[in-house]
Amino acid sequence: MDVALLIERVLAGDRRGIARAISMVEDGAEGLPELSAGLYPRTGRAYTVGLTGSPGVGKSSLAEQLVRAARGRDVNVAVLAIDPTSPFTGGALLGDRLRMQAHATDPEVFIRSMATRGHLGGMALAAPEAIRVLDASGAELVVVETVGVGQAEVEVAAATDTTLVVVSPGWGDAVQVAKAGILEIADVFVVNKADRQGAGEAARELRVMLKMGQAREWTPPVLATSAVEGTGIEELWEAIAAHRTHQEASGELEGKRRSRLLREVEQMAVERLRSLVHDLLDPAEVSDLQDRRIDPYRAVDMLVERVTAADRTAGSDRGAEGAS
Amino acid sequence: MDVALLIERVLAGDRRGIARAISMVEDGAEGLPELSAGLYPRTGRAYTVGLTGSPGVGKSSLAEQLVRAARGRDVNVAVLAIDPTSPFTGGALLGDRLRMQAHATDPEVFIRSMATRGHLGGMALAAPEAIRVLDASGAELVVVETVGVGQAEVEVAAATDTTLVVVSPGWGDAVQVAKAGILEIADVFVVNKADRQGAGEAARELRVMLKMGQAREWTPPVLATSAVEGTGIEELWEAIAAHRTHQEASGELEGKRRSRLLREVEQMAVERLRSLVHDLLDPAEVSDLQDRRIDPYRAVDMLVERVTAADRTAGSDRGAEGAS
Repeated sequence: MDVALLIERVLAGDRRGIARAISMVEDGAEGLPELSAGLYPRTGRAYTVGLTGSPGVGKSSLAEQLVRAARGRDVNVAVLAIDPTSPFTGGALLGDRLRMQAHATDPEVFIRSMATRGHLGGMALAAPEAIRVLDASGAELVVVETVGVGQAEVEVAAATDTTLVVVSPGWGDAVQVAKAGILEIADVFVVNKADRQGAGEAARELRVMLKMGQAREWTPPVLATSAVEGTGIEELWEAIAAHRTHQEASGELEGKRRSRLLREVEQMAVERLRSLVHDLLDPAEVSDLQDRRIDPYRAVDMLVERVTAADRTAGSDRGAEGAS
Repeated sequence: MDVALLIERVLAGDRRGIARAISMVEDGAEGLPELSAGLYPRTGRAYTVGLTGSPGVGKSSLAEQLVRAARGRDVNVAVLAIDPTSPFTGGALLGDRLRMQAHATDPEVFIRSMATRGHLGGMALAAPEAIRVLDASGAELVVVETVGVGQAEVEVAAATDTTLVVVSPGWGDAVQVAKAGILEIADVFVVNKADRQGAGEAARELRVMLKMGQAREWTPPVLATSAVEGTGIEELWEAIAAHRTHQEASGELEGKRRSRLLREVEQMAVERLRSLVHDLLDPAEVSDLQDRRIDPYRAVDMLVERVTAADRTAGSDRGAEGAS
């Protein structure tokens, strides 16, 4: 499909257009720079909420409840479910999504699972691009749901405006949260499956750990929900709204978005240079290195020199991502 | 100290010279390229053994036993204990090292804990450089001990000729090994504290998991040791020797070392380019980006162009690592 036409479709909120654009992001397609140039001026409206926590704590059900809450307020909402593994596990993920079929015919709800199939820099760089596609398409709220608490997923969940860390009584205790390194990234803690035994204790432990930590301007509230029963969802929605208001008033939201964007651009530049570095390793030089005729620092010098020469020739080849 | 003089001292096996050179690696000092050029031609003799596993499984005691076994065979040995955290925790680590004081006066044993205090690229790049210092100084065996099973530490432990993964009955079971992602990197499994209850079961579980995994040319043996009692150490030494022989005969050792060196050079080049990228972000461009006058891909283009222009000016500034 012609990228200019695709841009039009995304901006019009056309579902198949949005899906196609996200596929391009997953693939690291050649047309991405053009797509980005066309969509970017129309972004900045969406508020993003990240959902992370171990498998089985009920993140999908919570995402579904957030969709329901948003639709009750006439908010245009999209869900991006991050699949850090191969595209081949997409089936299972899409199975999870079935419960969201209640919203499948609602034109103001877009639900999509996402893997990376060639995007340089992996999910950390692909996810913000996909979020911008949804933003440009008219989504006012983008819920980013991750499958587990692997490093890549935590990174993606943390790169949102409000990050929810979800635990459940059966899953373990606050110590597990600390071990997973997700205590620091939470703006709101959700103890889901709150009707189960141990929910009160899990919440207490989290509060104790928060008190032991460094004082922050925003103290993450600890909420109890039962996503399956639909209880606690209003309070969760209000907590997200309160965090947003806090960040907007303090200027923190703009600052956070600015640094996220900077890190993303830096990382994209590094990835582009990395692929040049990899392509330009000279087998003869490698032999010299291995036979100790040149040392690693000298090899790096030569490699960096070659990379910059190559880039000079290629100029600002905006299709470099897709082609490599 | 003059780098040329330092090189001489390291090559002569002078302990203070070796310590000073490793400090330079930790600091990412300006003289590193010169140091590397002087030492590299004299490397390639040392065999490296990585030790990884959770805190408390007895890695330090095992390292001490390997030192003892090496000295009993008149092998010149060095231990590099990787401290992934701040240099300020060095005290605790050095406390652990006290038990090695038995070897403190042996001129053929060099023991040193190591942190990164400025080296670009962190421990993944600093550790191989420190290993080369030890190699050039005459060490025939370098034992690389990591504190925990964090990603950075696992990476360093895996980047050795033979990687030992250590578990203890108290620590958990084979499932924990699988979760930590260290099943794949083990060349030899060591169930330490084998006198404790559950040791036999831990060994059995590891063997089952190994059988379930992909068939490999080298099947990692599962050994039982008690580092404190000194039992099982001869068998461990023999297993390391057998793995070495296997790798030398199959050509795997040379191949592994070659790819490690390539990855290191690539990564060094990327880190050098990354620091240029970071320095060359233009605040005006950032504002344009944030105000959506330019899109991320365009910003990356401009950044990459600026990086290559900067590098052209700087030429092959071999002091770039230390200066930034």
